[in-house]
Amino acid sequence: MVSAPDRPMETSNPLSEDELRKIDAYWRACNYLAVGMIYLRENPLLKESLKPSDVKHRLLGHWGSSPGLSFIYIHLNRLIKKYDLDMIYLAGPGHGAPGVLGPVYLEGTYSEIYPNISEDAEGMQKFFKQFSFPGGIGSHCTPETPGSIHEGGELGYSLSHAYGSVFDNPGLISVCVVGDGEAETGALATAWHSNKFLNPIRDGAVLPVLHLNGYKIANPTILSRISHEELEALFKGYGYKPYFVEGCDPALMHQKMADILETAISEIKAIQAEARSTGIAKRPLWPMIVLRSPKGWTGPTEVNGHKVEGFWRSHQVPMADVTTNPTHLKLLEDWMRSYKPEELFDANGRLIPELKDLAPKGTKRMSASPHANGGVLRKDLRLSDFRDYGVPVEYPGKSEVENTNPLGKFLRDVMRNNLQNFRVFGPDETASNRLNAIYEVSKKTWMGDFLPEDLDGSELATDGRVMEILSEHTLEGWLEGYLLTGRHGFFHTYEAFAHVIDSMFNQHAKWLDICRNEVSWRSPISSLNILLSSTVWRQDHNGFSHQDPGFLDVVTNKSASVTRIYLPPDANCLLSVADHCLKSTNYINVIVADKQKHLQFLTMDEAIKHCTKGIGIWEWASSDDCGKDPDIPDVIMAGCGDVATMESLAATAILREEIPDLKVRFVNVVDLFKLQPDTEHPHGLSDRDFDSLFTTDKPIIFNFHGYPWLIHKLAYRRKNHANMHVRGYKEKGNINTPLELAINNQVDRFNLVIDVIDRVPKLGSAAAYVRERMKNAIIENVNYAHEHGIDKDEIVDWKWPF
Amino acid sequence: MVSAPDRPMETSNPLSEDELRKIDAYWRACNYLAVGMIYLRENPLLKESLKPSDVKHRLLGHWGSSPGLSFIYIHLNRLIKKYDLDMIYLAGPGHGAPGVLGPVYLEGTYSEIYPNISEDAEGMQKFFKQFSFPGGIGSHCTPETPGSIHEGGELGYSLSHAYGSVFDNPGLISVCVVGDGEAETGALATAWHSNKFLNPIRDGAVLPVLHLNGYKIANPTILSRISHEELEALFKGYGYKPYFVEGCDPALMHQKMADILETAISEIKAIQAEARSTGIAKRPLWPMIVLRSPKGWTGPTEVNGHKVEGFWRSHQVPMADVTTNPTHLKLLEDWMRSYKPEELFDANGRLIPELKDLAPKGTKRMSASPHANGGVLRKDLRLSDFRDYGVPVEYPGKSEVENTNPLGKFLRDVMRNNLQNFRVFGPDETASNRLNAIYEVSKKTWMGDFLPEDLDGSELATDGRVMEILSEHTLEGWLEGYLLTGRHGFFHTYEAFAHVIDSMFNQHAKWLDICRNEVSWRSPISSLNILLSSTVWRQDHNGFSHQDPGFLDVVTNKSASVTRIYLPPDANCLLSVADHCLKSTNYINVIVADKQKHLQFLTMDEAIKHCTKGIGIWEWASSDDCGKDPDIPDVIMAGCGDVATMESLAATAILREEIPDLKVRFVNVVDLFKLQPDTEHPHGLSDRDFDSLFTTDKPIIFNFHGYPWLIHKLAYRRKNHANMHVRGYKEKGNINTPLELAINNQVDRFNLVIDVIDRVPKLGSAAAYVRERMKNAIIENVNYAHEHGIDKDEIVDWKWPF
Repeated sequence: MVSAPDRPMETSNPLSEDELRKIDAYWRACNYLAVGMIYLRENPLLKESLKPSDVKHRLLGHWGSSPGLSFIYIHLNRLIKKYDLDMIYLAGPGHGAPGVLGPVYLEGTYSEIYPNISEDAEGMQKFFKQFSFPGGIGSHCTPETPGSIHEGGELGYSLSHAYGSVFDNPGLISVCVVGDGEAETGALATAWHSNKFLNPIRDGAVLPVLHLNGYKIANPTILSRISHEELEALFKGYGYKPYFVEGCDPALMHQKMADILETAISEIKAIQAEARSTGIAKRPLWPMIVLRSPKGWTGPTEVNGHKVEGFWRSHQVPMADVTTNPTHLKLLEDWMRSYKPEELFDANGRLIPELKDLAPKGTKRMSASPHANGGVLRKDLRLSDFRDYGVPVEYPGKSEVENTNPLGKFLRDVMRNNLQNFRVFGPDETASNRLNAIYEVSKKTWMGDFLPEDLDGSELATDGRVMEILSEHTLEGWLEGYLLTGRHGFFHTYEAFAHVIDSMFNQHAKWLDICRNEVSWRSPISSLNILLSSTVWRQDHNGFSHQDPGFLDVVTNKSASVTRIYLPPDANCLLSVADHCLKSTNYINVIVADKQKHLQFLTMDEAIKHCTKGIGIWEWASSDDCGKDPDIPDVIMAGCGDVATMESLAATAILREEIPDLKVRFVNVVDLFKLQPDTEHPHGLSDRDFDSLFTTDKPIIFNFHGYPWLIHKLAYRRKNHANMHVRGYKEKGNINTPLELAINNQVDRFNLVIDVIDRVPKLGSAAAYVRERMKNAIIENVNYAHEHGIDKDEIVDWKWPF
Repeated sequence: MVSAPDRPMETSNPLSEDELRKIDAYWRACNYLAVGMIYLRENPLLKESLKPSDVKHRLLGHWGSSPGLSFIYIHLNRLIKKYDLDMIYLAGPGHGAPGVLGPVYLEGTYSEIYPNISEDAEGMQKFFKQFSFPGGIGSHCTPETPGSIHEGGELGYSLSHAYGSVFDNPGLISVCVVGDGEAETGALATAWHSNKFLNPIRDGAVLPVLHLNGYKIANPTILSRISHEELEALFKGYGYKPYFVEGCDPALMHQKMADILETAISEIKAIQAEARSTGIAKRPLWPMIVLRSPKGWTGPTEVNGHKVEGFWRSHQVPMADVTTNPTHLKLLEDWMRSYKPEELFDANGRLIPELKDLAPKGTKRMSASPHANGGVLRKDLRLSDFRDYGVPVEYPGKSEVENTNPLGKFLRDVMRNNLQNFRVFGPDETASNRLNAIYEVSKKTWMGDFLPEDLDGSELATDGRVMEILSEHTLEGWLEGYLLTGRHGFFHTYEAFAHVIDSMFNQHAKWLDICRNEVSWRSPISSLNILLSSTVWRQDHNGFSHQDPGFLDVVTNKSASVTRIYLPPDANCLLSVADHCLKSTNYINVIVADKQKHLQFLTMDEAIKHCTKGIGIWEWASSDDCGKDPDIPDVIMAGCGDVATMESLAATAILREEIPDLKVRFVNVVDLFKLQPDTEHPHGLSDRDFDSLFTTDKPIIFNFHGYPWLIHKLAYRRKNHANMHVRGYKEKGNINTPLELAINNQVDRFNLVIDVIDRVPKLGSAAAYVRERMKNAIIENVNYAHEHGIDKDEIVDWKWPF
């Protein structure tokens, strides 16, 4: 038990004696199941005394937070029934899955989805054995867990997921249990502020329950070891009205929890009723609950003279040696029998009817809520024709456009047509990333205070649909929660700082991978669409710290079944790619496109064709016969990414002028995974197709947006790989001009020409002269930049189409 | 100005009229310089009217937070002088460098370090021009900035850096300005809790100043738009005593700031005096300050009818068109003249003596503090002989040891011998990672409440030196701050969740790269040592979410001059590597070693030799002539990483038994960058050395700890790369046994044998039979795992040395 004294509270006792008896019995059933999952492979109902052979060889699982999790769960059940609520449950302490799986099984959902795990002794035995067992299920609320939208394998994201789930879900209450360990993470610490973005008219509610069980693996938690006054102040400071349920005596705690939950739900309903009846959306003090209960509650008080219940020693498996230590085996049996399974389950192992009756029915069960299998609620977006937003391209390289600007107009109309189920997310950069057309339709969500000057362009509104907070974690978490509950979204962020959410990306990719390939009952959800803008090549002025195209390297480590990467070279290609991504499901689509002005190359029709193929020869920039005979070109110039493509084209133009006999083939890559073999990625080119583009023996000068070695990582199996010379960002940046930054990393036109001259054999003395001129051009341009602080205006004549 | 009214305060007016006049003049000089940096390339003293040609072509920089930053800076100067304090200054709003560079220049440090930027008109002109200019300096507090240990290019880390800097620095006060934008990030939101780890006896103090200027790029900030009551509660909840300095009238604000700063410093000194005189370390309520001042304070009130001062429109450059808009050019000139430069600088452009006198002298200047150039204070660690901690190895593969356990003992004695300047950092996993021997010498720092049961193994102490909080961000930030101020540390964390700090790693690597290669006055600091433990191959039981070896992929994107990666195969190698890392400077050393029991291979002498080379043939496991004739082996088996090496060795043993004629060479890689060419990384092998190990034409079966394609990324230029077949983690995991997880990803012994058989030509029908047996062994072992939940005990006989 916790050492803090039971805090005196003026609670009513809302539960009748019979209700109390039943809810406690139900909780005992949950706890019995939790212990069973951790320990048993046989003898699920303890029909006989426990034998070592009943116990799993390897004991895995986390008892510590399980009783608290089921305690909360079943008290929610009571209110769901009483008020006919729509609720889902997010377990932040992910390792506490036994505390969730127990009630999910008891309310029947588990057996409905997995008929093999039936509601009887046989099913219970399988249910126990499969837990954290090879070939079975994990010890977190993995995708296999009915009702889960949050695995909790990595800590920190429960609260932002919860908020994401209730945006535009006015009827939903998402209850989010935040572990006090998890509460120490950065992502969680800032997610509390999500209440400044929740509109009580339009959105549902989150009821956070801070589960203060006091300990992590082997340490106390910070929030459990500060004064009550500080704790209360903290949550008031975060903008909540905190309620405390503290103690260890189950009977008292049931009454307290029932009372406080009743209060919290009433407040939520009152807040919503007032806002919805008056039409006035202001930020209320939403209730939140601090549940201070013992870690490993109801488990062994002491083992080997060491305190266990209410201490970190109950974090995982309280006694790990039960198969070899008969005393501990007996202790386990006594512990399990203390829940009186014979009173809870009938002879066949089915929960007795009077307890069965405590759970909600059908889709009111949190484990069967369609919101937690969002794909079933998902509706396709109503999309305008993206072609209508295209920019005119008279001929390649004639005009310049901010590539993300037309996308902003397209997204504006996506927003306009989907005002119930589409949001845009970005860290204070929607305007900076040139997507500000969106504001014509919907402003930024803002439930903080307003000032008069906000009317002058701040674009704030309580009913805005653009989500901006300076926390990539929170944005990503919101969006994931929004998608997992069946909606659509678009996230744009600074390329370099996408690394802030590397680990969140990893976890979401793993979640999707399992859903796609192993959990057939989960319907596909909308893809997670991430636009990386303010890219490395236009961070010349912000300097080295803002230059990092490495998020793609992280993406390419994840399963090919869920990852897609696009680097559209111009505005029309970006539109075509974005349209495709918004229609797709179950992927993470990463799009790289800079916000600044860039040359335009393809008409909309050409862009569509090119993006559909994902890779192709640009005939108008080539001087070979464009693939009719694969051996004809002397060199292949390839570009992938907006700036990389432009520089590569410029080099091609110089070569055309200076070495007119040279046969150059120009290849552009939009869909990065085209470079991988088709055996590795569904988008991969066959070797035959790859070879016909890149030949099997000609030099390839590949100009890449990101770190150059990523291309080798993808293409190392290709026949002509040895001739592939890749340029890209190699950590050579400071305060530069755009061209200077390109030169420092050798992705610029001049260095690319030199690369060609150095790699194509027998070019002769004229080429040597060109090489010299390129060298001089580099020096000249850097000197100009250092003198004037800008690049020279006209560096090369665009000579397309040839 | 901010719209919030000046809050009435019962302040005394600590500044005399003369002091007020002078400090305001000094501030005007700072602001003048800040505007000059952003705009001017000529005419620094406005000796003539501004012409368009005086202005930079490209206007870059952030005016918004600059005046507030210099306001704080110069008020600190007053107290440094008054109380002879040792202070450093961390500017969280990194883009506000003009607000820091100004006072740094005025106090003379800049010119001392960069004589070319002298304290006269010529120097000032260069000082202005170089700012955010190609070939010049950045707009953040980059390593080039005297006194900076925090660039602020990426937001979120200022406060953890500040706390790291004062641990074991009892005389230091680190003032940390937290921008209200930055305050929204996760890393920052949890770093406030660092006060639960600060011991007033042994450590210095952090004085956080939340700079509430109200706006980010184009948005209000959350903390500026909640009620005063909530804001105050939040910081009380975080455990601080908040003081508010709010307003916009400079004269009033100077008095308030002087008063509150005086109070805050007095409280810090009183807290420290009491703790140090009584010897009782308890957590006090440390003061912190909320400075609510207008964004772009003292800048243009309005431009084109839009509010600018006190609004987001002053975030960057208030008027960007001054070269083409004469009205705006005039506005700029008026703005600059409003600071009355002629009263501040003499005819030569030097700050007048009475103002000069306001700054501290020598190393008391925050810009000249040795703490901010920690290398000058750094002393080598006193290290025991790591050989003494080695484990006996009778013959390779005989015994098993938890690899990190001996390291724990070594670190214990490092701790014992360096109780002033060494700390260990990890998220609640020191014991879990088997480093718990450290607790024999020093416990976990804990300044939260204590409970009686903590005596039973919680290992907490107010003077502990092991830092544990469940926030990788905070740990990494603390450690960086600790290293940057001249001390030593060791960070260990779960491999998968190292991705949480990808972006912090990136930023620190960039900082080091610049320091090493471009900032000669910065002395080398201790390397950042990161141990990745609880690695992917032993996360079989925690499941998919805990399996991610991709941190290495992020590391390999950064500059070769600062990155080192080691994968020691056993305990003795780990000791040798760790000793090397602890002695090194200016690197980020990443060590990958699992905590669980693993076979031991090398005696300490062998381990030292092997780790010194970084890569080598293990003759005892090879059946070729070990490199005397590079063409002799039929196949090269390579292992990199503990589990990968073990499985590769096991495969070698099977091959030895089953196909005795096969000549196998076994290569182990400890130092991952050996695989890169020496032209790419200083540790890289020459092609000649690489070829002599790996041959130029024999199949290589390379078993790697991480994602397999990383090896191709490093080795793609090698002659025999086409024959390199790499196995590694490929996202095939769930709840498994260790062997099953290996099998799923084909890094297991059986699949490796199959790889050999499939790749070595002409092995004949006996090999085909072996292949079949391997297939069966795979099925058999997976079935066994699914049945019993564990791996079969003895899978293969170890047959070394051959």
